Amino acid sequence: MTVHIGIIGAGMIGTDHGRRLTDAVAGASVVAVTDVDAERAASLATNLDARALPNGHDVINDPRVDAVVVTSWGPTHADYVLAAIEAGKYVFCEKPLATTAEDCLRITDAEQAAGRRLVQVGYMRRYDAGYRAMKRAIDAGDIGRPLIMHCAHRNPAVPESYRSEMAAHDTAVHEIDTIRWLLDDEIVGTQVRTPRPTSNRFEHLHDPQIILFETAGGVHIDVEVFVNCQYGYDIQCETVGERGAVRLPDPAGAIVRREGLLRTDVLQGWKERFADAFHAEFAEWVHSVRDGQLTGASAWDGYAAAVICETTVESLHTGRRLGVQLKDMPDFYQHGGMP
Amino acid sequence: MTVHIGIIGAGMIGTDHGRRLTDAVAGASVVAVTDVDAERAASLATNLDARALPNGHDVINDPRVDAVVVTSWGPTHADYVLAAIEAGKYVFCEKPLATTAEDCLRITDAEQAAGRRLVQVGYMRRYDAGYRAMKRAIDAGDIGRPLIMHCAHRNPAVPESYRSEMAAHDTAVHEIDTIRWLLDDEIVGTQVRTPRPTSNRFEHLHDPQIILFETAGGVHIDVEVFVNCQYGYDIQCETVGERGAVRLPDPAGAIVRREGLLRTDVLQGWKERFADAFHAEFAEWVHSVRDGQLTGASAWDGYAAAVICETTVESLHTGRRLGVQLKDMPDFYQHGGMP
Amino acid sequence: MTVHIGIIGAGMIGTDHGRRLTDAVAGASVVAVTDVDAERAASLATNLDARALPNGHDVINDPRVDAVVVTSWGPTHADYVLAAIEAGKYVFCEKPLATTAEDCLRITDAEQAAGRRLVQVGYMRRYDAGYRAMKRAIDAGDIGRPLIMHCAHRNPAVPESYRSEMAAHDTAVHEIDTIRWLLDDEIVGTQVRTPRPTSNRFEHLHDPQIILFETAGGVHIDVEVFVNCQYGYDIQCETVGERGAVRLPDPAGAIVRREGLLRTDVLQGWKERFADAFHAEFAEWVHSVRDGQLTGASAWDGYAAAVICETTVESLHTGRRLGVQLKDMPDFYQHGGMP
Amino acid sequence: MTVHIGIIGAGMIGTDHGRRLTDAVAGASVVAVTDVDAERAASLATNLDARALPNGHDVINDPRVDAVVVTSWGPTHADYVLAAIEAGKYVFCEKPLATTAEDCLRITDAEQAAGRRLVQVGYMRRYDAGYRAMKRAIDAGDIGRPLIMHCAHRNPAVPESYRSEMAAHDTAVHEIDTIRWLLDDEIVGTQVRTPRPTSNRFEHLHDPQIILFETAGGVHIDVEVFVNCQYGYDIQCETVGERGAVRLPDPAGAIVRREGLLRTDVLQGWKERFADAFHAEFAEWVHSVRDGQLTGASAWDGYAAAVICETTVESLHTGRRLGVQLKDMPDFYQHGGMP
Repeated sequence: MTVHIGIIGAGMIGTDHGRRLTDAVAGASVVAVTDVDAERAASLATNLDARALPNGHDVINDPRVDAVVVTSWGPTHADYVLAAIEAGKYVFCEKPLATTAEDCLRITDAEQAAGRRLVQVGYMRRYDAGYRAMKRAIDAGDIGRPLIMHCAHRNPAVPESYRSEMAAHDTAVHEIDTIRWLLDDEIVGTQVRTPRPTSNRFEHLHDPQIILFETAGGVHIDVEVFVNCQYGYDIQCETVGERGAVRLPDPAGAIVRREGLLRTDVLQGWKERFADAFHAEFAEWVHSVRDGQLTGASAWDGYAAAVICETTVESLHTGRRLGVQLKDMPDFYQHGGMP
Repeated sequence: MTVHIGIIGAGMIGTDHGRRLTDAVAGASVVAVTDVDAERAASLATNLDARALPNGHDVINDPRVDAVVVTSWGPTHADYVLAAIEAGKYVFCEKPLATTAEDCLRITDAEQAAGRRLVQVGYMRRYDAGYRAMKRAIDAGDIGRPLIMHCAHRNPAVPESYRSEMAAHDTAVHEIDTIRWLLDDEIVGTQVRTPRPTSNRFEHLHDPQIILFETAGGVHIDVEVFVNCQYGYDIQCETVGERGAVRLPDPAGAIVRREGLLRTDVLQGWKERFADAFHAEFAEWVHSVRDGQLTGASAWDGYAAAVICETTVESLHTGRRLGVQLKDMPDFYQHGGMP
Repeated sequence: MTVHIGIIGAGMIGTDHGRRLTDAVAGASVVAVTDVDAERAASLATNLDARALPNGHDVINDPRVDAVVVTSWGPTHADYVLAAIEAGKYVFCEKPLATTAEDCLRITDAEQAAGRRLVQVGYMRRYDAGYRAMKRAIDAGDIGRPLIMHCAHRNPAVPESYRSEMAAHDTAVHEIDTIRWLLDDEIVGTQVRTPRPTSNRFEHLHDPQIILFETAGGVHIDVEVFVNCQYGYDIQCETVGERGAVRLPDPAGAIVRREGLLRTDVLQGWKERFADAFHAEFAEWVHSVRDGQLTGASAWDGYAAAVICETTVESLHTGRRLGVQLKDMPDFYQHGGMP
Repeated sequence: MTVHIGIIGAGMIGTDHGRRLTDAVAGASVVAVTDVDAERAASLATNLDARALPNGHDVINDPRVDAVVVTSWGPTHADYVLAAIEAGKYVFCEKPLATTAEDCLRITDAEQAAGRRLVQVGYMRRYDAGYRAMKRAIDAGDIGRPLIMHCAHRNPAVPESYRSEMAAHDTAVHEIDTIRWLLDDEIVGTQVRTPRPTSNRFEHLHDPQIILFETAGGVHIDVEVFVNCQYGYDIQCETVGERGAVRLPDPAGAIVRREGLLRTDVLQGWKERFADAFHAEFAEWVHSVRDGQLTGASAWDGYAAAVICETTVESLHTGRRLGVQLKDMPDFYQHGGMP
């Protein structure tokens, strides 16, 4: 049984996901595409042998569409996700789920009213082989109860449009989801520290930043966000437990000895670093849509990330350690979104 | 456009490939399955939502079948491949292409008569990320002209049915293909050496063996084959050139510090080690079938491997260094199997 | 020319240093030893073919003694160092230089009055090959201007006598010196954070702790102190700069593949981890005493460490980020302790 | 008690050892130096605060000299070693012990006649931390009974005076000693293979070479000798046993991330690579001289290496696998050179 998919948003990430669903993921077929730029939609539709539709609601309500992928501009996410829920269709929404915690709650409310999980948020790291091995090691008790995590999220450079607040909302948000998932614990405190800035950045930007999180269980996490590190795209993570520690390996690359150096290439971007994770994410999503049982990050995870990001940005502005005010998780989400 | 595939041979590897083509590879659909064991065929057919057919020729000649995957018992390969060529259908044949060099030549003759490449042999290492990075490094001149290769092929254990000759035919055959592909050079000499045997083997078996190859260009290669190494499945390869060397990385795994050890798991089998390579191999094969332009190991590669293996086994029995007597490569294969 | 050395304190570290100076370091000869436990002094003296003297002042004033090594109980350090300065003799003092910042200042005052550097404090990491390579990389500009450091200091276990304050005074004090030396910058802020404690500790102890330092230049440093980590003695350090990062390697050990694991031993103690550094430290100290030109950590470094530790302990007790109140460095120390 | 040493040969290696014995090794004092070039001898003597003597026999017979270090031109070694034995003095002889097997036997005969071990040959790898860890792992049974060894010995470049025969005599001779010591087994077969030569060599030279050794116990070893590899000085060794494998680590260096590369420096020469080993070798030799009980490579080891090298060169010239004709080891050497 093929899952017929409609894509809302034909930008870089929508195009990527469209190609992936068409060329690389079994059991999926992209049948409809839209974008605010009709030409871009038409081009992707031709490319994928799909139909271009005027707008997102047309895609959602197209009877041929079984499931929707939302890759449009962030501020439009909430409306499309809510419409998909109303239409009773599965929806894969790239992060953020919504640009405000309030909108996220409107979504979790609607999904609970619908009586079953329809929404998955695009946190691909949960599908990365390294993080999965780390989670297995933690869950197996290999390192004992976790106490500390050290994370680094480095990008070679960001454009002028990148603002200091995006260190939380666009960058550390991946660590936020990863931490919550790896530890099965909630983030309850956050504080941003700002070392002296790199000279390789636009003037307006705090870069690097160090974000300190605490969980309900008392785990302390430091996340270095450094988005103009120059040398490459580099994701590091170590979890320290009561009797051991587990660390992500550096991506395996050919080991070259040459000109006095023992060297491996550092990857240069997230597309390359997480290519396999994106593939696994969509392969698993398509299966889970077919099985009627979503397994990835939920709308609640999207809500929690939104609140934690908002509080983190507030800490950036005030310099103070702040508590994260999250609502209690509804039973619905504690039971995997099953009634 | 979906490629409709028929599978001949529903054993372990056929079942694996069937699942892969159905669940993981986009653009492919398994429509027919056969096996000498009808029950096994029926079971896989049900599993893949395909039709079970009485025998391989029925699969090949089924008008719904665009391309054939041969995963039956080795001695049957040649007949099925020849029949597929006669039917004008693409055929993916697991190694060996045929059990004798003569049969391989019948296949290359038939394919040339057909006027275009239809046959691909299942050497999955050409799709492994590590080997691909090594090939890129060599082709880019990073290490200069290659002079030497060191390889090791270790399995944790083999069953009693594994015989000394299989060290060449079933094990080192992968290195043989990899060497020829990485170096773009032909193997012209081979010699087997037998260190003292491990006590962890069945009595009749020479294990480990060391095979020494030479290429036409003068590259010397040593291949350690050790199929009862106990500790895991471990594939090592280093190519040494005039100004540098490139080595396969160990597979990346979570790095755990615990109980006085800094440790990573060693994989235990080829299925796990080359899972991504198998996936890429079939994804690329399906694309290339659709494009009408095969890119993987050719029938000529299958022929060459057969001759090199046969000569290697002769060296095992005689203890002498032997020249490999290969026919000249026809123009057809020099030009990628295009007329 | 042999440097004749007197050792004050024949405990574990004094015995170690005595053996090292006798058996492993060229150009040194231990001629006198003392200890509060006369028997212990006698035993070490016999062992080193030296003379046992009644007390530290006898050692300092013994005309055969050119230079003094102070390895006695911490609270006695200041008196012996002051006496050595008064006697015009070089003195190597194990950390701490003194147990209070005030006593440290008495020493720096006395040394300035003496008109030349006589005091070296035993921070052996400055002699570790890994840290030295890191310093070379930083000084060469390989990573650009430093912005961030991540450190971890893990011990397998500590005895019941270890108290929470010792995380700064006995453990992180090594990082404090290393940071100041690597960055050639001063620590001006400190804050302790306490994750949930490991269950593998004595009840009274905060373990692990995370100490956040800031330098005058705006570099932010996090130091994980975890003294009951169970798995081994593990020192990690990464310095992140404007265009790259440099990390200490894990100590090189034989790489063993066995029983499904690729593994290296983790060292179990600081003696083993820093054996080469201790050797280099004393070899260089003996040379520098002979040359009349000390090069290691100065009394001022000892003073700074004392103040930073005291402030860090205050932060542990108050939970607040505190500024470090250091006096201005006298010209004397800015010029290497030369008049 | 200080060991007073005389050095015969004030070239590069003699100068190095002289400095090491004076500045870095405790318990030793160089008192006499000679060289065929009297000026060079005088210069080193001044440098080490020793006396320059007219020739090697003067050094050996100087009553102030307890032990002799022979670092002169290879062809002179045998005479000096024999003279030292005759004088009843300990002698450390840089490899080779003698330039012919016959001369080596004259030495072993003389030493046996003297009734106790006086001779140590300078195989410093036995003191390298990595090789020592490998030996510990093998001796502890971590990898089971050894079956195979893979070695590589790469130098960045050699001068025009380096000849093909030196691949055995000057380069692989270190592997020969290491293999015999690690495995506690004798080399009984040798064969040289010559891959196509690198273009980065002088015309007359076979480089690289691959030497295949077999031991009495049936272990097979391949040694790649590549003395113009361009990129650095690189020593690799892996021992494969019945249940595991152990490999030398790459030398630990700072790990730098920069300009798209994760990189570590490769050392450029044997002096740097084995600096710690040389130090340990002399420290241990001085101790063992003092204790009257030598522990390093014996004259017999020097004899065996000579025969194996000679046979290997013969194989280079004939291209054939040759048996190594070693005399039986006398009881004297089986019992550590004790009567």
